[in-house]
Amino acid sequence: MGMRDEILEQPAVVERLLGEQRASMAKLAARLRRRAIDSVVIAARGTSDHAAIYAQYVLGTRHRLPVALAAPSVLSLYGTAPRFRRALVVGISQSGASPDVVGILEAARAQGAPTIAITNDPRSALAEAADEVVDLAAGPERAVAATKTYTAELAAVALLSSALLGRKADSAAMDRLPTALARGLEAEADAQRAAVAQRSISHAVVLGRGYEYATAREWALKLQELTQVLTAPYSAADFQHGPIALTGPGLPVFAVVSGGAASADIAAVLRRLRKLGADLLVVSNRRALREAGARSLAVPGGIAEWLMPIVSIVPCQLHALHLARARGLDPDAPRHLRKVTRTT
Amino acid sequence: MGMRDEILEQPAVVERLLGEQRASMAKLAARLRRRAIDSVVIAARGTSDHAAIYAQYVLGTRHRLPVALAAPSVLSLYGTAPRFRRALVVGISQSGASPDVVGILEAARAQGAPTIAITNDPRSALAEAADEVVDLAAGPERAVAATKTYTAELAAVALLSSALLGRKADSAAMDRLPTALARGLEAEADAQRAAVAQRSISHAVVLGRGYEYATAREWALKLQELTQVLTAPYSAADFQHGPIALTGPGLPVFAVVSGGAASADIAAVLRRLRKLGADLLVVSNRRALREAGARSLAVPGGIAEWLMPIVSIVPCQLHALHLARARGLDPDAPRHLRKVTRTT
Repeated sequence: MGMRDEILEQPAVVERLLGEQRASMAKLAARLRRRAIDSVVIAARGTSDHAAIYAQYVLGTRHRLPVALAAPSVLSLYGTAPRFRRALVVGISQSGASPDVVGILEAARAQGAPTIAITNDPRSALAEAADEVVDLAAGPERAVAATKTYTAELAAVALLSSALLGRKADSAAMDRLPTALARGLEAEADAQRAAVAQRSISHAVVLGRGYEYATAREWALKLQELTQVLTAPYSAADFQHGPIALTGPGLPVFAVVSGGAASADIAAVLRRLRKLGADLLVVSNRRALREAGARSLAVPGGIAEWLMPIVSIVPCQLHALHLARARGLDPDAPRHLRKVTRTT
Repeated sequence: MGMRDEILEQPAVVERLLGEQRASMAKLAARLRRRAIDSVVIAARGTSDHAAIYAQYVLGTRHRLPVALAAPSVLSLYGTAPRFRRALVVGISQSGASPDVVGILEAARAQGAPTIAITNDPRSALAEAADEVVDLAAGPERAVAATKTYTAELAAVALLSSALLGRKADSAAMDRLPTALARGLEAEADAQRAAVAQRSISHAVVLGRGYEYATAREWALKLQELTQVLTAPYSAADFQHGPIALTGPGLPVFAVVSGGAASADIAAVLRRLRKLGADLLVVSNRRALREAGARSLAVPGGIAEWLMPIVSIVPCQLHALHLARARGLDPDAPRHLRKVTRTT
């Protein structure tokens, strides 16, 4: 079992999560609705931090909740826990073992704030520290680079949002995810071709915006873990506030952009980058957006905009995997990394 | 007047801000203390977003306030403003002209939330949108790459924190800033030497942690705006959760690390990076930390840890300026950029 096997497991993992967790999530949501919640604080590191960014957009746009991504160092280095007044505090961690993330949940619970752990290990320290546990039940993840637990974390966030809102239409929309994930895997041949063509790059910019900003961040991290290519991820808006000065002929730019509210804006940025000579790889569910790139990877259509990041990361994972291989690296043995990093 | 002149102006700008704004900040703080504030939301883009990160640490460690960095796209793309219940909403923008940042303040004020604009233009749309205006009074900033308005934004955040806490010791600590900023400028010759030696690099990693994470982000942005070097900034903790796999012999790593709570942790990371062959440039107020680097830039001592980012950015600005020049680029004419970027 290696990283590629775990990428291929994702349709089954998300299908199982949606099937098995829906009833318990509805009960969790009913308990949460009895609490006064004005805002949300999320603690996470690494890949899980990108699930937190997704949650920031989901809870912001669908629930109008301000979401703070906790700076765990405020507690772990400076010893001061925030006062979590009328805040829901969520910890997201595949292993549930990162002491700084656990510390935030423990502090929140001690203050009486409602707490949720989203983790692949329901017996972890993080699960112990929280009132409520969402078990990703993704099966053991053995590859150092997280893939199936990332999509499971996003699906858990989507399920939580849907349960809190109690919207029937969401269930039908989420039921389309496993099939879309399976179709997303069909991008592998194109991902491999793009990777072989790009095998000599040393650095790249990764762009996303809105919901897909989380995907851009996660794609960039996979590339850094696996390929030894230095990647800098940006929201397309922030990119225009300075980093666009990097763009010259041949700069590799990887963009993930779904049809929807962000697409007109990011399409204009892509046209500008192309004029400046950037070498564009576009991952999108829209043909017109893909055609802005010199190369592209297709994401299946038919998925609601707010659920797109669960699907669009799949071609990006395959691209990172094949770029590692094309560079003669083993994606199952990235250098200097262990599966669980215990930062304090 | 170019960017270098504006870098040199910083001691005077901060001295003027501390002198002229202290009384009005005390009144502003008195008005804020009458409001029920459980959390803070900050909207900013580009350089000002790094002042927002600094505020996240200051308000988190000194005031125990959860701080959310707003995702302005939630409003500007998806049309939903968060419900700002018992939240203080702060907009930070040099020009005060960015529609997405202005939009967040307008929505907050319409909901009756207390709002503050921190801007260099007290007649800007941002200032118009806020209850309270902190005028940076830094004088016109003509260089595209912001420098003096960044240190002024940090000083304004520090002054706000001090006024809210009403701690006498803070005033004495802040009074040392102008002299320390002037001494920070003395790093220019070393910054130039380091830049000349590094003039052929194509990419680099920038590290900071805790309070200095904001400095790492801002240093990385200056390098991207001015030098056409792709830089990826990380907190030293997040770096260990994946991106460390990038590190091979010769990888340029720029680290900014002040003595204090974060230093033991980041010192261990620097030792590891050096063993892996990274080419380390260390900016620090501690000789022992500087000696971890193949090259280093000195930051003056005698400044409280929470105020260090106001000083330690200065050698970093000078390094970015001289790296641009060493690469034959004009730091006053970065390509593709205008002074004000109006993202929506």
